[in-house]
Amino acid sequence: MTPEAPEEGLTPLTGLEQVSQTFVSGPQNADRIRIRYFSRDRDGALVGRVQFGPQAEGPPGAAHGGAMAAVLDEAMGFACWLSGRPVVAARIEVEFNRPLPLGLEARLEAWVEAVDGRKVTTRARLHGEDGLAYSQGSGVYVQLDVSQLGV
Amino acid sequence: MTPEAPEEGLTPLTGLEQVSQTFVSGPQNADRIRIRYFSRDRDGALVGRVQFGPQAEGPPGAAHGGAMAAVLDEAMGFACWLSGRPVVAARIEVEFNRPLPLGLEARLEAWVEAVDGRKVTTRARLHGEDGLAYSQGSGVYVQLDVSQLGV
Repeated sequence: MTPEAPEEGLTPLTGLEQVSQTFVSGPQNADRIRIRYFSRDRDGALVGRVQFGPQAEGPPGAAHGGAMAAVLDEAMGFACWLSGRPVVAARIEVEFNRPLPLGLEARLEAWVEAVDGRKVTTRARLHGEDGLAYSQGSGVYVQLDVSQLGV
Repeated sequence: MTPEAPEEGLTPLTGLEQVSQTFVSGPQNADRIRIRYFSRDRDGALVGRVQFGPQAEGPPGAAHGGAMAAVLDEAMGFACWLSGRPVVAARIEVEFNRPLPLGLEARLEAWVEAVDGRKVTTRARLHGEDGLAYSQGSGVYVQLDVSQLGV
């Protein structure tokens, strides 16, 4: 992982790492899940670089399906917030396409697909450099009233 | 948590804790997710007692949706194995019904709903003593050939 060399067209979202010191990202998760988040300049999508470590093992040598689901859920939620919509998750669906080897740096994309009143529909993918998905998800998130946030 | 006093009609599955020293359960997760698994005598369903700790926080004071999804995924997979079917996950759906407070001991149930060739359909619920769901899931798992297991 080379945080000093962000890729072209991606703006690092260092703030999100501060927000998310909990289950999915955050430095305490180094042996579990490492994520760097970016905003993709051309369309504002949330983009990430993710490595699953030995403590996120499911099948031998590969990422736990639950760990991939957690990453896709967090990324879809962040994509909503990034688009200016504070949300909570109502429903997610995750499809597992092929094993994601531990230690490999996978690519993550998450974006808002549709907005209907307070209902925000999202999609996310974990894929390789070849573009083929390891797993992909969709979600329905519900926009919060600012008054519910207690801020 | 009182592992010395299992509830009536439940047989502790201590072996599963040995199998799953990884992402969801296992002693290294004490501040994150604590699970005790049981087999329910009357129907063979997988039953659990789960507490989410401070490192599994999503919304303030409540479990991360991704953490609940990971637990439901693991429980549905274990329910398949418990029924004699070694599987990998193909697809899961998770619905989030209400916030699950950190520290509260929730109940977990997972069971095989249907089997069609190698396709195993499952369901799982995280709920309170009042029977109301915090989150619930369904899944499609694919039975492995024993020859694929490398054992």
